[in-house]
Amino acid sequence: MSEPLKIAVAGLGTVGAGTLALLAQNADLVAQRCGRRIDVVAVSARTRERDRGVDLSGVDWYDDAAAMAREADADVVVELIGGEDGPAKAVCEAALTAGRHVVSANKAMLAHHGAALARQAEAAGVGLHYEAAVAGGIPVVKALREGLAGNRIRRIYGILNGTCNYILTAMRDSGRRFEDVLAEAQKHGYAEADPSTDVDGIDTAHKLALLASLAFGTELDFAAVHVEGIRHISPLDIVFADELGYRIKLLGSARMTAHGLEQRVHPCLVPTDTPIAQVNGVFNALVASGDFVDDTVYEGRGAGGGPTASAVVADLIDIARGRRTPVFGVPVEALEKAEPAPMQRHQGAYYLRLMVRDQPGVIADLAAAFRDEQVSIESLLQHGQSPTEAVPVVLTTHQTEEARMQRAMAIISGIEAVVEAPRLIRIEEL
Amino acid sequence: MSEPLKIAVAGLGTVGAGTLALLAQNADLVAQRCGRRIDVVAVSARTRERDRGVDLSGVDWYDDAAAMAREADADVVVELIGGEDGPAKAVCEAALTAGRHVVSANKAMLAHHGAALARQAEAAGVGLHYEAAVAGGIPVVKALREGLAGNRIRRIYGILNGTCNYILTAMRDSGRRFEDVLAEAQKHGYAEADPSTDVDGIDTAHKLALLASLAFGTELDFAAVHVEGIRHISPLDIVFADELGYRIKLLGSARMTAHGLEQRVHPCLVPTDTPIAQVNGVFNALVASGDFVDDTVYEGRGAGGGPTASAVVADLIDIARGRRTPVFGVPVEALEKAEPAPMQRHQGAYYLRLMVRDQPGVIADLAAAFRDEQVSIESLLQHGQSPTEAVPVVLTTHQTEEARMQRAMAIISGIEAVVEAPRLIRIEEL
Repeated sequence: MSEPLKIAVAGLGTVGAGTLALLAQNADLVAQRCGRRIDVVAVSARTRERDRGVDLSGVDWYDDAAAMAREADADVVVELIGGEDGPAKAVCEAALTAGRHVVSANKAMLAHHGAALARQAEAAGVGLHYEAAVAGGIPVVKALREGLAGNRIRRIYGILNGTCNYILTAMRDSGRRFEDVLAEAQKHGYAEADPSTDVDGIDTAHKLALLASLAFGTELDFAAVHVEGIRHISPLDIVFADELGYRIKLLGSARMTAHGLEQRVHPCLVPTDTPIAQVNGVFNALVASGDFVDDTVYEGRGAGGGPTASAVVADLIDIARGRRTPVFGVPVEALEKAEPAPMQRHQGAYYLRLMVRDQPGVIADLAAAFRDEQVSIESLLQHGQSPTEAVPVVLTTHQTEEARMQRAMAIISGIEAVVEAPRLIRIEEL
Repeated sequence: MSEPLKIAVAGLGTVGAGTLALLAQNADLVAQRCGRRIDVVAVSARTRERDRGVDLSGVDWYDDAAAMAREADADVVVELIGGEDGPAKAVCEAALTAGRHVVSANKAMLAHHGAALARQAEAAGVGLHYEAAVAGGIPVVKALREGLAGNRIRRIYGILNGTCNYILTAMRDSGRRFEDVLAEAQKHGYAEADPSTDVDGIDTAHKLALLASLAFGTELDFAAVHVEGIRHISPLDIVFADELGYRIKLLGSARMTAHGLEQRVHPCLVPTDTPIAQVNGVFNALVASGDFVDDTVYEGRGAGGGPTASAVVADLIDIARGRRTPVFGVPVEALEKAEPAPMQRHQGAYYLRLMVRDQPGVIADLAAAFRDEQVSIESLLQHGQSPTEAVPVVLTTHQTEEARMQRAMAIISGIEAVVEAPRLIRIEEL
C-alpha cells in the first residue's frame, strides 16, 4: 500500500465530528478502497475542551485554523467551518497557497468565491472538492461532473434545502401556519435560530449556482439567481394546490434559454405524480436532464453529520486514488460567461390567490385584467361565500411570460374589492 | 490539449450507434471535459451495409471484432456486442491481452466472467469499465464505487429491468394478463422475441450480482442469486396488492445477513408510498443504503441507445482523464468470498393467494397450517362468495422465516378445498 493520505480538519461541528467518526469506524474499508490509509494529522476548532465523541489523541491541535492550513504536515485540508468569508475562506486560501488539496462543505463561500478559489487550485495543481456542499450525502456533484459528462445538460432542478422541505411537508401534514412550524423546527434543531439563509432561499441559491456552473460549463454567477423564499406560503395555498393536483416545493432550477442562463429559486407548484413531489421531510432530490440520458433523479438525506461526512470522505477517496477532475468540470479558463436570463422573460404557468370581497363584478374585473395582458386563464376556483369577510379566489394560467403576469398582478392589486396583496406561485412544468 | 483518446467500437446496434452519435454530436463538449478529443478509429459489426445514421468515413472497418481488438491502433475497445460468451468475451480478452482498456455494456458476460476479466485487466494495468451494464444511463456504478465509498453498504435494492417494470405497470394500468401485455410489449419492441432473460429475472440477476460485488467488496457470485420472474403474477394479485397498500415490482436485492450474503431477484410487494413503488414504465431505480449516508435513490432510463451511450461515454471520459478505480472498487485479490445466505433462512413478510372452494372449515384449516408452523397472520381477505366456483383468499403474514412459510404452503397445498397451487409473493420491508 502507498503512503497514507494525511489530512487536517478545520471545524469540528456536526460534520467535522461525523467525518472523524467515519474515518475511524470505517478505516479499514476506506483504506482498501483508497489503496492507502487516510490519517487525520491535525484538527482545529473553536474550543478544545468539548467532548465530540471522537479520539483526538496523536492528532495535532491548532487554535488557528489558517495556521494549521499553512503549517500542518497534511496533503489535504478539510474546511468544515462554514460562512461566506472570514476564517473558512482564509483556511482554503492558505491551504491552496501551501499546495494542499482542499475539501469543503461550504456552499456559501464557494457560491461567492468559488471561481477565485478554483483558479488558485488550478494554478497550484491541486484539487478543490465540494461534494458535501450540495445535497449532503447524495453524490450529485460527481453525477453531474462525471456520470453525465457525455451529455449536454438541458436542465437541472431540485429540492436542495432540507429545512424548507421539512417546513412545507409539516405545513401540509398538519395544516399549520409557516410561523408555527418554523418555531417547532427551531425547537427540534431542524432550523437555525436565524432561519433566513434557509427559509428565504439563499442556501438553495448557493447550491444552485454551484450546480449550474457544473452543468452548463458557465462561470459561477450567484448574483444572477432569482431568489424567493417560503415565508409567504399559507396553509390556504397548500390546500388549493392539493385540490389542483399539486404539491408546493421550494425548487432551485437552472436551464439555458434563448434569453440566457435562467437560475431561479422560488416556491413551485409541482404535479403530485412526479418524483420530486414525493420527496418529503428533510430529504433532498435533484433532477438532471441530459440530451442523451434524459431525466435522472438523485434522492437522499441532504444534511446531517453522517450523510455530509459520507460526501467529504468520497472526495478524500478521490484524492487518495489520484482521481483528478477540474473544479467545475472543465478548466476555469474554459468556463463561459453566460448572459443571465431576465426573470421578466421567464415562461411558465402561474397560480394566483386573491382575497376578495364577494361582490358582483369582481371576477369580471379579474378576467379583464388577464385579457388585457393576453394571459389565458386555465382554471378559477372560488370556495365559500361571505357577505362580510373576504373570500379566496384562485386562478391558474396557461403558459405565459412573467412580465405579462406581473403587469396583470399590478392591475389586479388596484381592484377595489381585492383586499390583500395577491399571492403568486409559479407552476413548474416537469 | 493532450493526444486524442483512440477508441475501437465492437457492435453497432442501438447502443453502438447511439455511442457514435453522442461522440459526434457532443464532440467539443466531451473534448473539453476530457481535456482531449475522443476519436473513433475502428468499428466492427456484423453487416457493413446497414445505414446506422452515423458517419463512418475515415474509420477502419473490421469484419472480425476480435481481430480489431488485437490490431486496431486504439487505447480503448468498447464492447457492445452482448452475449455471455462467444464474440463479446473474445473481444474483451483480446483487448486486455493487447493492453487496451475495455468499456462494456455486457452484464451477462460480466456476471459470469467479470472476475476473470477483472484479474486480466488488473494484471495488464488497464481499466475494465461497465457503467452501461447496469441501469442504463443512471450512474449507479460510479455512485456505489466512488460516491458512497466511505460507507459500509447495508443494503441495495432496485428495479433493474425496464421490460419487467413496463409489463407490471401496464398490467396494473389496464388490468390485463401477463401474456397479453407481453405480446403487446413485443410488438412495440419493449420486449424481445424470446423474453425469458428479462421476464424470468435473469437480466436483473446479472445486474444485481455486479452491484453486490461492488457494494459489499465480495467476489461475484451470480450462481448464488435466488431468481424468480414475473410470469406468475396475475391481475388478481395486482388488485389485491393495491387494496393492501402495495405495488408489485420485480426487485433485485442484496444485503449481508447473519447467514451470509443474500442476493434475491423476485416479485415483491412494496408499500405504495415508497419511492421505488412510484417508479413506473421502462424506468429503473436503485436504492443504496450506507451506514453514514443512509438511503440514497437513483432513478432514470435503464435502457435505450441514448441513455446507454451516456454511460459508455462517461466511462470513456474517466479513461481519457486518467481516473482509475479497481474494477469492483477494491483490487480483485481483496474481494472476499461471501458465504451465500440460503433462501430458506430469508426473513420477511409474505403475501399468499389461494383459490379455494367456498365451504365451511376452509379458513380454519388454513389458520391451523400457519399455527403449526408458527407463522403469524397479519390480514386475511376473502372477496365474493360462490357455491360453484373457487374464490380467492389472500393472507398476509408478519415477519417469519422462508422455511416456515414453505412448509405452511406445502400443508395448504394438500387441503382438499384449495384448488390451485398457492401464489406466494414476498412483501419487502423498505
